[in-house]
Formats: sequence, structure tokens, C-alpha cells
Amino acid sequence: MTEPVEHRRLIIAGTGAAGLTAAIYAARSNNEPLVLEGDEPGGQLTLTSEVENFPGFPEGLSGPDLINNMKEQAKRFGTEVEHGIVEAVDDSERPFRVELANGDVYTADAFIAASGASARTLGVPGEDDLMGYGVSTCATCDGAFFRGEDMLVVGGGDAAFEEAHFLTKFADTVYLAHRREEFRAEDYWIDRVQKKVDEGEIELLRNTELLEIHGSAEEGVDHVTLATNDEGYPADNIDDPDTETYDFDVGAVFVAIGHTPNTGYLESTGVELDDTGYIRTQGGHGANQTATDVDGLFGAGDVVDFHYQQAVTAAGMGTKAAIDADGYLESQAEAAAEAESESPAEADD
Amino acid sequence: MTEPVEHRRLIIAGTGAAGLTAAIYAARSNNEPLVLEGDEPGGQLTLTSEVENFPGFPEGLSGPDLINNMKEQAKRFGTEVEHGIVEAVDDSERPFRVELANGDVYTADAFIAASGASARTLGVPGEDDLMGYGVSTCATCDGAFFRGEDMLVVGGGDAAFEEAHFLTKFADTVYLAHRREEFRAEDYWIDRVQKKVDEGEIELLRNTELLEIHGSAEEGVDHVTLATNDEGYPADNIDDPDTETYDFDVGAVFVAIGHTPNTGYLESTGVELDDTGYIRTQGGHGANQTATDVDGLFGAGDVVDFHYQQAVTAAGMGTKAAIDADGYLESQAEAAAEAESESPAEADD
Repeated sequence: MTEPVEHRRLIIAGTGAAGLTAAIYAARSNNEPLVLEGDEPGGQLTLTSEVENFPGFPEGLSGPDLINNMKEQAKRFGTEVEHGIVEAVDDSERPFRVELANGDVYTADAFIAASGASARTLGVPGEDDLMGYGVSTCATCDGAFFRGEDMLVVGGGDAAFEEAHFLTKFADTVYLAHRREEFRAEDYWIDRVQKKVDEGEIELLRNTELLEIHGSAEEGVDHVTLATNDEGYPADNIDDPDTETYDFDVGAVFVAIGHTPNTGYLESTGVELDDTGYIRTQGGHGANQTATDVDGLFGAGDVVDFHYQQAVTAAGMGTKAAIDADGYLESQAEAAAEAESESPAEADD
Repeated sequence: MTEPVEHRRLIIAGTGAAGLTAAIYAARSNNEPLVLEGDEPGGQLTLTSEVENFPGFPEGLSGPDLINNMKEQAKRFGTEVEHGIVEAVDDSERPFRVELANGDVYTADAFIAASGASARTLGVPGEDDLMGYGVSTCATCDGAFFRGEDMLVVGGGDAAFEEAHFLTKFADTVYLAHRREEFRAEDYWIDRVQKKVDEGEIELLRNTELLEIHGSAEEGVDHVTLATNDEGYPADNIDDPDTETYDFDVGAVFVAIGHTPNTGYLESTGVELDDTGYIRTQGGHGANQTATDVDGLFGAGDVVDFHYQQAVTAAGMGTKAAIDADGYLESQAEAAAEAESESPAEADD
């Protein structure tokens, strides 16, 4: 078995709002956290050009600036941040063994999973370059920046429908492009969106796929290239004579083809995950809301929350996880002290 | 029945971190919230001289500054803030009738209770003047500011014991003063504190009451005046020859005699309150975590949370309440539109 690089009282996986806020609290409680930064440093927040809804910043600030502030704050109180992709957590023994992709192994008395969820993206030209500059994976975060523009939402599930519906508050017209004829979204959302279609606020582009996004970081999205084919999946049938390719003017593109919680490394543990991979925490009222089924292992942020997914809700949950972990660590330390003080007495009997 | 002053889509009671963050989100969702500010504007945060653990502020900021930032941010997106003590919410009809202490009545389609909890205080000389300058009602918030000092905790319940225990991280010695011989705290906490007593980190001052706190805003707490009487309740028996009064040097005083959630105005509604008056929200996973038993009435912040009670956890819950309320208002609007569009059709039958 690989020799551990180091033992830590507390390891936190993730440097988004949840992980860094957990680190601020944990460091202030003298738990000297090590935060492991994965391959999306800063998490979903860094995909947002301007955060206007994080409380305390009336002028707003950029997602990366907010994350940098949190990181600086966590470090100020003694947090260490290192790059490391967690591949597995071994909860069969204590301390936990935390195995990284580079082969390094740490041990930890407690572990907070704040590894977030990654928005799925299309991989089309322009998407990466314009992410945060007119292309977004979060309507709630970014919709208000494009008031009065035509907007394109890509996707056919609940998230796409919810985002399209939400964006009618701001958009001139919302176009919802889906590669097939049928939608995967629940009837509830289909009905709600259909009403907006009837009212002329949303237009459905069935059997339509986004091929390319055109624009610049300075000017944002200028237009997109779409493909359509009545049989569906036009991008896969781009050479089909029935596939039509055309340019289309929109001022913003929302890619809403789902998120994947980053919990693969927990699959071999006793942590309960739901059908889509999100961590099930204890919830409820009072202490230990962030506890999982594994003692000493806590969950916070988008790796738990499949619904609200806001920076400040993640930060709140990170705080709870740090407080819960502190309670756990204190009780472990006391149990250990008690065991130690009792064993000589037993020897005396 | 008093004629309503005004109808609002959404009324939020409370201008602490929960209420103002709810307002930021609600205003950005075009729900034009009215926020009613009670007689503790800004809530518990304004009792804290410096907030170092709210994520995003690596240098820290004062509690009042943080609250002012949030208020400015909420107003920027269209929130109105007015002074108003809510005396009752009538949930027997819709819209809700929201009755204020001055006799004004508002109606509202949805209501967020973010009215917080008020720390009980002793009412002794010096307490008010030095609150935030060495006197605190929150060890988690303020303990770290007094590293190396002797600290006095006042109280005999779970909160006092938990705070005394927590403060051993920072204090030279923690003194725990309680007016009686017996403690109300659970054995769990008494045992944990007793260990710290054995280790010399906490000293119990039974049958002891705090009479006065001496110091200045500039220099903080200098010393306190205590009274002790072996029969208990020395302050009530101050003229008893067995009551001894003396000065005692400490650098900080933590008043931990409990909080009272501000939920009196909900007692006649269908909202479930726990034994101590805290709102029971739905909790769980997914949408509507902040829903109460009354449709359209949501709870957030210290009026719900009797455990974590941090600014950022309150802000996170406020966000959830705003999102939940938005979902409720949208579904109500759609139901109304549907009812309207169906009634002519019915007339045709």
C-alpha cells in the first residue's frame, strides 16, 4: 500500500464556493484544512463573468474575483490549497485514505466532499472561447445581463425548459433548440413553456443543433450557426441533403444539457448517492445537516444540491459542513482521550 | 376590517442576512419585494464589530457594513425597505394580510419570514455600551478576536456550555458564571466542559451573577463586577450579608442566556413552530426546502436555524426562500391565467 504523503486533520475536496467557505470556517476552528483543487479551480463561479447576486457586493464582482477573495481569506486563517484530483476515498479504515490521480495518498481524520458538479458542454467551436462572454451554463446567474436580447437555449430536458422559461423575463425572444423532435422534459415544464410559446415569448427549434458560436470576448455573442433536419440529429447527418445549415442572430447562448456531480471517487464508499450521482446528506434541522452515511465524511455545495445551485447557497452549506466536521473531530478527540485515560485504570483492576 | 395600505407580490419580514439576501434574489426575479425592517435593523450581524468569516471578504468588514452592502444591493434591483413591526399574518385568506404594530395592513401574495432570533441580554450596566466591543452574544462570531484573554461566559444552559467549550480554543482561561448551583445544560455538555475544567481551561463560577461590565469602546472590556452567594441568585439577594461583591479581570464577556426566535406574529397561522418557537420548514433535498405548512409562506435564517446561526448560512437560506417563493408565485400566476382562459370555454358548453 502506498505510503501516505501526509496526515491531515481535515481534507476538503474542491475550491468552489462550498469548499473555500468550509475552509475559512475550518481554519478558524483550528482544523488546519488541506483543500484539494481539482481540474476546474473555483468551480462553476469561474464560468460567470459577473456575479451580481452574491450578498455583500452591491456593485457586483467577477466570479473569478469572488473565488480569489475566498481563497485568500481561507489562506489567511491557515488553509493550505494544493492541486490534486481525488480518485478514491477509502472509508474502510480511519483515518480515511485519500488517493489522488498522481498516485499520492493522504490520510485524513475527516473529509468534506465539495467537488461540485460540472456543466456538460457541447464542444462546438466558439463555446469555450465565449464562455462567460455571452455563452453561459447558468440562466439564473447570467440571464439578467442580456435584457432585451434574443437568446438561444440548447437542450431538451427539465433544465433547458426551466432556463428557457426563466429567461422570458429578460429576453426579447427565447429560442429553444433541441436535436430531436421529442422533449425529455416533464409535462409540467413542457406545459409551462408551451404557454410561453403561445404568447410568442419562446420559439421551439426542434430537430435543430448548434454547430458554432460566433463573437468575441469584447462584443459577446454575435450569431450562431444552426443545423436542422426533420429526421432529427442534424449534426450527425450533416452531409444529408435534407440537413439545412444557416446562421441565426442571438445575443446569448445558454447550454443546458445537464450537470454531472463529481462524485465518481465516492462510489466505492458507504456514501449514499442518488440516481444521478448527487450525495444524499442527512438534511433536517439542527446539527449534522451535511453528514453522509459515512461518519466523518460530509458533503456541501453542488455535489449535494441539484436544485438551487447558487454561490451563496453553496457557501452556506460549506459553512455547515465545516461546523459539522469540527463537531465530529472534537468528539473523536474526546473519545480518544477518554480511552487513553481509562486504560491504565482498567489495568489497575 | 382595516383597508390595506398596499398590495405586494412578496413581503419579506426582516433585514438581517436572510431577509436582505432573499430580497436581492426576489428583486432580480422581478418579484418587487417589500422588506419590513423591525426594531433590530440588520439583525444579529449588527452586534458583531468585525466579520471575518463571511466568504468574499479576506480583510473582513464590520457587521453593519456587510448589512449596508446587502441593503444597497437589494435596493439596486428594486427592493423597497420600510420600517414595520409585523404583529400578525392572517393566512386564512389570499392574499395574506400582514398587520403592523402601527395599525397599517399590507396584503401579499407570498411572505418570507426572516425575522431572526434575538439574543437575550442581562440588562446590566455596561452591557449595551460595550456590545460589539468586548461584549458579545456569539462566541463563534467573536471568540477569535480575544485570543489569549481571560473570558467570561454567562449562562447555565447548552448554549453557555457550548460557547465556553468552544472558547477554550482561544482563551487563556474561560470563566463560566451561572446564578445557581445546578446547570440546566445537558449531561453531554456538562461532561465535555468538566473535562476542560479538569484540564484547567475552564473555571466554573456557580451561584455567581454579573452585575456590571467596565471598559470602553476604544479599549474593550477591562473588568467586570460579580456577585456570589452560596444560596444562589446573588443579584436578587444583594443586601444579604452572605452575598459577596467583587471585581474580576476579563478581556471579553459572552452572554449566552439564550435566543428567542421572533415568531410571535405567526402563532395564529398554520405555520408549524417547534417547542421553542422556531419555524419548522420542509427541509430535505430539491425544491421548497424553505416551505412551511402554509402555502406561500416561507422561512429563512435564524428564525428557522437554531444551530448554525451564521451570516452566510442565513444568506444561503434567504436565497432558497426567494427561489421557492418565485416558484410559488409563478405557479399561482399560471393557475390564475388558466382559470381565466377556461372560464369562457365553460360558458360556451
